[in-house]
Amino acid sequence: MASPQNKRDWRFLLHEIIYESNTAAGKAFDVGLLIAIFTSILVVMIDSVASIHQEHGRLLQRVEWCYTALFTVEYVLRLISIRKPMRYVFSPLGIIDLVALIPSYLSIFFIGAQSLLVFRALRLLRVFRIFKLSRFLTEIDFLTIALKSSLRKISIFLLTVLTLTVILGSIMYLVEQKENGFSNIPESIYWAIVTITTVGYGDISPVTPMGKFVASVVMLIGYAIIAVPTGILTHDLAMAAKKEKKELPEACPNCGREGHDGDAAFCKFCGAPLL
Amino acid sequence: MASPQNKRDWRFLLHEIIYESNTAAGKAFDVGLLIAIFTSILVVMIDSVASIHQEHGRLLQRVEWCYTALFTVEYVLRLISIRKPMRYVFSPLGIIDLVALIPSYLSIFFIGAQSLLVFRALRLLRVFRIFKLSRFLTEIDFLTIALKSSLRKISIFLLTVLTLTVILGSIMYLVEQKENGFSNIPESIYWAIVTITTVGYGDISPVTPMGKFVASVVMLIGYAIIAVPTGILTHDLAMAAKKEKKELPEACPNCGREGHDGDAAFCKFCGAPLL
Amino acid sequence: MASPQNKRDWRFLLHEIIYESNTAAGKAFDVGLLIAIFTSILVVMIDSVASIHQEHGRLLQRVEWCYTALFTVEYVLRLISIRKPMRYVFSPLGIIDLVALIPSYLSIFFIGAQSLLVFRALRLLRVFRIFKLSRFLTEIDFLTIALKSSLRKISIFLLTVLTLTVILGSIMYLVEQKENGFSNIPESIYWAIVTITTVGYGDISPVTPMGKFVASVVMLIGYAIIAVPTGILTHDLAMAAKKEKKELPEACPNCGREGHDGDAAFCKFCGAPLL
Amino acid sequence: MASPQNKRDWRFLLHEIIYESNTAAGKAFDVGLLIAIFTSILVVMIDSVASIHQEHGRLLQRVEWCYTALFTVEYVLRLISIRKPMRYVFSPLGIIDLVALIPSYLSIFFIGAQSLLVFRALRLLRVFRIFKLSRFLTEIDFLTIALKSSLRKISIFLLTVLTLTVILGSIMYLVEQKENGFSNIPESIYWAIVTITTVGYGDISPVTPMGKFVASVVMLIGYAIIAVPTGILTHDLAMAAKKEKKELPEACPNCGREGHDGDAAFCKFCGAPLL
Repeated sequence: MASPQNKRDWRFLLHEIIYESNTAAGKAFDVGLLIAIFTSILVVMIDSVASIHQEHGRLLQRVEWCYTALFTVEYVLRLISIRKPMRYVFSPLGIIDLVALIPSYLSIFFIGAQSLLVFRALRLLRVFRIFKLSRFLTEIDFLTIALKSSLRKISIFLLTVLTLTVILGSIMYLVEQKENGFSNIPESIYWAIVTITTVGYGDISPVTPMGKFVASVVMLIGYAIIAVPTGILTHDLAMAAKKEKKELPEACPNCGREGHDGDAAFCKFCGAPLL
Repeated sequence: MASPQNKRDWRFLLHEIIYESNTAAGKAFDVGLLIAIFTSILVVMIDSVASIHQEHGRLLQRVEWCYTALFTVEYVLRLISIRKPMRYVFSPLGIIDLVALIPSYLSIFFIGAQSLLVFRALRLLRVFRIFKLSRFLTEIDFLTIALKSSLRKISIFLLTVLTLTVILGSIMYLVEQKENGFSNIPESIYWAIVTITTVGYGDISPVTPMGKFVASVVMLIGYAIIAVPTGILTHDLAMAAKKEKKELPEACPNCGREGHDGDAAFCKFCGAPLL
Repeated sequence: MASPQNKRDWRFLLHEIIYESNTAAGKAFDVGLLIAIFTSILVVMIDSVASIHQEHGRLLQRVEWCYTALFTVEYVLRLISIRKPMRYVFSPLGIIDLVALIPSYLSIFFIGAQSLLVFRALRLLRVFRIFKLSRFLTEIDFLTIALKSSLRKISIFLLTVLTLTVILGSIMYLVEQKENGFSNIPESIYWAIVTITTVGYGDISPVTPMGKFVASVVMLIGYAIIAVPTGILTHDLAMAAKKEKKELPEACPNCGREGHDGDAAFCKFCGAPLL
Repeated sequence: MASPQNKRDWRFLLHEIIYESNTAAGKAFDVGLLIAIFTSILVVMIDSVASIHQEHGRLLQRVEWCYTALFTVEYVLRLISIRKPMRYVFSPLGIIDLVALIPSYLSIFFIGAQSLLVFRALRLLRVFRIFKLSRFLTEIDFLTIALKSSLRKISIFLLTVLTLTVILGSIMYLVEQKENGFSNIPESIYWAIVTITTVGYGDISPVTPMGKFVASVVMLIGYAIIAVPTGILTHDLAMAAKKEKKELPEACPNCGREGHDGDAAFCKFCGAPLL
């Protein structure tokens, strides 16, 4: 009877360490994992530089294998320490972990698959879990609320920008000759995006006077409408802050409902005097 | 007697489907139309790529004809389902529909007119009608109010920027030699717009030390004044939100004081029940 | 006795037309002048294009003379219609008018001085006087108040940015080799300004890995600190709006002082009941 | 007994002049020092221009020596006028002063060390001390409070942007061929930073259609998320202003209600005189 209990304890403890970050061991695991992810990405990065690959390629490959072994062990531990392993496998983080792991094996068996190792960079998204450890939590929560409420409005904004770039790119395709880099409509739309976002590579740029005029209009539009997402987010941050504040005042002693203003003397729901 | 009644019903129903989006059929029509517009633009886009045009040009031309037929039928249906067709023809959306349709016919009869098909992209503006279907309505309304009240101020801002670019462009024309790309004043103004909007293609860039100094000033101006449209819009969003809020609550019938929350049943100042 | 009175009236009338814009004639003069300025700049612009200059240079030169005559008459009229002409001559607009006029005469007597005609663009600054005619006045006033209160803070910000660019430019001069475009420190500072303002011409760009790393840091700094002027201005706009609002409530019937809050029942200065 | 007293006075006076800026002499010293720093940097800048170095190199070197002597004297005076010299030596400003001084001596003894003189630019950071002299203090304080409270949130934002650039850069490395400039992952990440910050040099830019599509996504992300730091800072500026305001007014001694303006002499709720 002690054995299954023991086994359950062991799995429970492992779960605590791997999935939770309340305990010291859990925190250490999270930080250690992040360091492992970060250094493994660094190795992939360095290995992608041709000169380093030629000289130290063999060494880096071995280091690569160690990381593969490490992440495989981690993945297996995650599977056995959770009650419903399938739930983890098909969770967003689980999918990322798998997608980051598979190329490691592919790169062993197939030549050329090594470049797929970059998918390991996706695991960097785990960095956002680390914030749960720290005092950053309030700020993250606050930002998340504001971003969520802004998301829909900013989506409308981006859709508008995209529609604009299709129209402006098409106009530019007509205005500029094909020889000037605006060789087809998708290319012109790419140019419009480069211009309206004020990136301005200069790989394609207008040559004819008329094209330069249209480009000037596109630039001024881009310069003026950047105000829109900023305005939206700033406003939603203020709303989120106000909401947070409003929820502070205490509950009515009569009906128990909350949400009274700071200057309220009577409960706005039942009319009983507050405090 | 049944026939005209019937006919009227038939036209009424068609009007409901084509112009309104309250019914399921109306929604389906709007979504279907948007998909048709989007795919037709995709065909024009793809056909503009030289390699694809050479290989599949004939096929794409036929698809083009189908879309032309489809949009012609749509246009005719719009005309016969509305009481005053001229009103639709001269409405903004009606003009866009016609401008998008005419090149389709021109491209059949005239060689080279095919590139005018890009005007079909203008129909993408119908995308904003689709929002009426969805829950995005409140956000759109809110943004529209703020944008409208900002429009005049942002126009002043853009006029100021344009005046600045004319002056700075003219100065740059004097400072830099003609060989350095600043070959005439309009060109220099184009450069000033590219620079002040922080796009920075690099197709024209200062060469002389004095020119680089002037350019640095232009850049810093552009970097600092981008704050203006953002500040204006953010402020107007806040104003729009405050206005919306203020119009909600009524005054207390007992003490007459206002400023109650939308969900208040009792006056928060004197405790009397609100309406 | 009628003659001097008459003459005074005539000068007074001229002053009304030229300097004020309350009357219909004054408005017409201002609008007409702005059109003249705008078209004269257009002529200078067009004349700067080499191909047009070769073909229509002679014609444009004559048009130029007409504008010179017109603006000379305007300047003389300004001088004789004002009581203290020297005050106008040394006012900012007066200096601009003179600076814009002198090159016109220089270009007649000296070959090559024609390019100085671009100084006429400075007269475009008169465009801001035109706003006084229109309903834009409130918006302009509002913006001006906010911009004035922001000016000092934004100056500090720009000074900080300049200090940063000197330091970062100097570091980059050390990091990158002279062959890579960073040939001296002023050049490197120019690059730092191009980068930190996110203009990014690409005429000078880092080549070495270390240089690219430093450049990345500069870019991220530029991307993050653009928030500063925007935040300042937005905040000052909100303050300006609040101030404006606060000044609305009426004066105390007892002491006559203003500036009471909307919810004040008693004068905060003398204690007398309001209203 | 007079001598040590005298000596102490002399050192006290020197301390007042060098470290404090309350007295006229202290202000003059600070301004003079800043001018010396600024001109010495100007000399280093000018000397870095090859053509000037060739012609006036010898003269500039002598001027350099004068500055070295001047700053050495200043450093020694700082050491002897303070009670605990080590405290100054290891303070941030003390380290900057030393780091700026050492290259001056290295450049005398070693050829080539002259380029290290650029570290003198770090001394420009003293410019922020000068604000203490002036009325700018309130603005600086206000900005500093808001920036401090924003710092943590903007760090999270920059960390997110960096994670994004690693992921997007890695994807781009896969998408684009090595010949197109994306020769290794660090290079691709550099491109992602150039693009997401909307700098857009154009030294590396996508060539393949797929690469252009990914680049467009990166640009639109960069264009939309620039709203985040701006929104955060604007919000924190408003919070800082509110806090400052709230701390000003005291409660009414009669009714105990708060929220009075700073200039209020009577309670606006009950009319009782305020303290």
